[in-house]
Amino acid sequence: MNSRMIARSLGLILLCLAVLLLLPMAAGLYYGENVVCFAATIAVAAALGFVLTRFKPDSNSISARDGFVIVGAGWLLLSAIGALPFVISGDIPNYIDALFETVSGLTTTGATILADFDGMSRGVMFWRMFTHWIGGMGVLMFIMAIMPMNGAHSMHIMRAEVPGPVVGKLVPRARKTARILYCIYFALTVIETVLLRIGGMSFYEALLHAFATAGTGGFSTRSSSIAAFDSLYIEMVIAVFMLIFSINFNLYYLLLLGRIRDVLKDEELRCHLSIIAFATVTIGLNIAGQYGGFVRALRYSFFNVLTISSTSGFGTADFTLWPEYSKCLIVLLMFIGGMAGSTGGGVKLSRVMIFIKATGRDFMKIVSPRSVSRVSVNGRRIDNDTISAVYVFCALYALLMLGCTLLISFDGYDMATNFTASISCLSNVGPGMGMIGPAGSFIIFSPFSKLVLALNMLIGRLEFYPILALFTPAFWKK
Amino acid sequence: MNSRMIARSLGLILLCLAVLLLLPMAAGLYYGENVVCFAATIAVAAALGFVLTRFKPDSNSISARDGFVIVGAGWLLLSAIGALPFVISGDIPNYIDALFETVSGLTTTGATILADFDGMSRGVMFWRMFTHWIGGMGVLMFIMAIMPMNGAHSMHIMRAEVPGPVVGKLVPRARKTARILYCIYFALTVIETVLLRIGGMSFYEALLHAFATAGTGGFSTRSSSIAAFDSLYIEMVIAVFMLIFSINFNLYYLLLLGRIRDVLKDEELRCHLSIIAFATVTIGLNIAGQYGGFVRALRYSFFNVLTISSTSGFGTADFTLWPEYSKCLIVLLMFIGGMAGSTGGGVKLSRVMIFIKATGRDFMKIVSPRSVSRVSVNGRRIDNDTISAVYVFCALYALLMLGCTLLISFDGYDMATNFTASISCLSNVGPGMGMIGPAGSFIIFSPFSKLVLALNMLIGRLEFYPILALFTPAFWKK
Repeated sequence: MNSRMIARSLGLILLCLAVLLLLPMAAGLYYGENVVCFAATIAVAAALGFVLTRFKPDSNSISARDGFVIVGAGWLLLSAIGALPFVISGDIPNYIDALFETVSGLTTTGATILADFDGMSRGVMFWRMFTHWIGGMGVLMFIMAIMPMNGAHSMHIMRAEVPGPVVGKLVPRARKTARILYCIYFALTVIETVLLRIGGMSFYEALLHAFATAGTGGFSTRSSSIAAFDSLYIEMVIAVFMLIFSINFNLYYLLLLGRIRDVLKDEELRCHLSIIAFATVTIGLNIAGQYGGFVRALRYSFFNVLTISSTSGFGTADFTLWPEYSKCLIVLLMFIGGMAGSTGGGVKLSRVMIFIKATGRDFMKIVSPRSVSRVSVNGRRIDNDTISAVYVFCALYALLMLGCTLLISFDGYDMATNFTASISCLSNVGPGMGMIGPAGSFIIFSPFSKLVLALNMLIGRLEFYPILALFTPAFWKK
Repeated sequence: MNSRMIARSLGLILLCLAVLLLLPMAAGLYYGENVVCFAATIAVAAALGFVLTRFKPDSNSISARDGFVIVGAGWLLLSAIGALPFVISGDIPNYIDALFETVSGLTTTGATILADFDGMSRGVMFWRMFTHWIGGMGVLMFIMAIMPMNGAHSMHIMRAEVPGPVVGKLVPRARKTARILYCIYFALTVIETVLLRIGGMSFYEALLHAFATAGTGGFSTRSSSIAAFDSLYIEMVIAVFMLIFSINFNLYYLLLLGRIRDVLKDEELRCHLSIIAFATVTIGLNIAGQYGGFVRALRYSFFNVLTISSTSGFGTADFTLWPEYSKCLIVLLMFIGGMAGSTGGGVKLSRVMIFIKATGRDFMKIVSPRSVSRVSVNGRRIDNDTISAVYVFCALYALLMLGCTLLISFDGYDMATNFTASISCLSNVGPGMGMIGPAGSFIIFSPFSKLVLALNMLIGRLEFYPILALFTPAFWKK
């Protein structure tokens, strides 16, 4: 293990955090607020970062194991220090609550322990929403985009931080790939901010909601979320951008290259759009009675299917009051999540597709031993190593979900609450069913359960391995 | 496909059913009841069986595919005709309800659509409970034990009907293996009947409850199940026999051969006993407040952990009223089920062990690529084909469970009810949470949901492949 390189990378992450905190501090200053909370946190992050970056590694090589440690420990550090402004400002005085909120922000989960936050200071609220934007694409990707790093080995970091079973480089150099992805991310955020501003939001709220949409996070500046704006236009803009950010970013790069036909033929995209269409229509029919007709119901089914399918978690309606079929389908959508290579969470659609196709193939192999068939996505054959990795991913998902449900059950809430809280945190969605629906809050859980759920968010955001590895004794053995 | 052999085998199953129905008919005659319902059903089964056994196969060979068809179609036929006595007698006038009850009996699920059955005629009640005993070991195993069949190929039938990932022959000949297993099954049933008779049950009820315990079914002659007898002795006898019948029968054969040390060293057995001990103690502590102390609570936690872990489903307490931790653990035990090669249902402990060990190994492979480790159970290495089969099994379990939950959600009951109904039926347990707890009944579901749940029971009992294959178009292609 290249410990000096790990220390240096963690230092870079902290310096990067210090720089990023300047933005909410500037917002606080603009609104004439007390910005001690940011100044103090920047001082801590910068000092620690300065010390850690003093380590001079003998070599620039980063192994896969180093990559896991950098990403896992990096995100834990970011969360631990990123929680300080909430505590120092007094907006969330309890450190565990602040940590939960920060992890929920950075992992783009959007689950909140706040019940009413209309009185939060504007600088701190900026930081709360900005964590979604930082976490959506990943802070290490950001560092990679702006700093010269060893190209040959930084792929390990990229693989560990960017979601999806098969992460390919768009262009030969990892750094350039990171830059392209961040440019697309930045441009789309700007466009959404402008569109929301046109819809009547203040620039401040438009920008913050664009941050939250871009990361598929789900935090809002309003306690009643998007419903507070009561505007069909704003709902549709956010819904469409949730869709956009739940699509593989590689496809936008292909679009920029003019390869429209390749984009339209993408199997995962077609499947994603079909699922969304199916869910929107059937849920629309299912809830039509509650909203005075199918057409009016579509407004709510479309927005809420997208908010769950993209794993954002904005609210326009309390779907815990919907009929059981709709609720059940919503929970299924939480499992699946967005497309690989998007900012969405969940198992990821491409994994679900490989999982179902491989299961079907292996089922046929058992019932009809002479049958031979391949698993392919987008016409390309999926090799057995990838299939096996997908199975392990799904197995870990199931085990973590069941374990988390059992651990938080000590708080005594009902099964639907515990079960969907686990799924929602592991998939980085935000709301769940029962007591943690769009109208609920995670404040109900004990500090122990909050830590378990926060850990699950981090595990889910980094797709299990970096965080789980840190807690595996065998991983540290030579 | 050897169609004539399949037809002949199905005919044998029906003839066997006709013979087995003589027993409840005799009970009905003994109690002076009208036995037209049995006479008519025997006539139907015998006539159809006679016609089908007229097919003379050109060869005695049974391929794996033939095995799936014989077992899958055989169980569907058994259920369809086995439901007739309930309908003709008028005890369950609705055919779909009767079919649900018969499938629930044969698959040893024990979920009932009856709310109050204390007034059921004794012959029909005998048949209801006897289906558990027939289904526990399997009707084809029974035929194999008593009829001369082609030994080389009947393994395909045995593999399809007997639960567990690795079914080994105890002795070289399948027929002799079937006989040994049925002898152990028969002897244990007799011992339990005697012990229950000593405890004060009538011979009729003792025998019927022994049938239900042997198959790990869960039906009772009383509406309030085992609680009706209000006897610690009877509860403990049934609990111990539920444990006995959830253990791999191969171990009893080893015991008979005097290989006690091999039995004690069995990893799956140790794990099974550890899980039961852990669950009994922690649930006991969790519910102590409700039962006036830990020691008194142990009576209920021990019985109910065993009733779920063995996938029986007898009731002595309404665990839907227990604290959330206990309920959550009970649902986890439903997934796991009994040991492979027992009459218990669920995923089976050995599969869960292989699943967790393989997931751990593959996780280590990903986070530390140079690590090399094998998956072994009982000191024997598990090959990759078996691991892959276990993964597919678990994947199918998850997909079927989610699909079933979604399909029955149209009835509008709460998520805990739908979710646990699916698990309970797929694992052949019986009760679930919410509205289908030990005090509830499956009568609440629509006919469509009842059919879905009954199909899930059959799919679960035959471990997916035989029934799923019948409904897979590609399976029938040449």
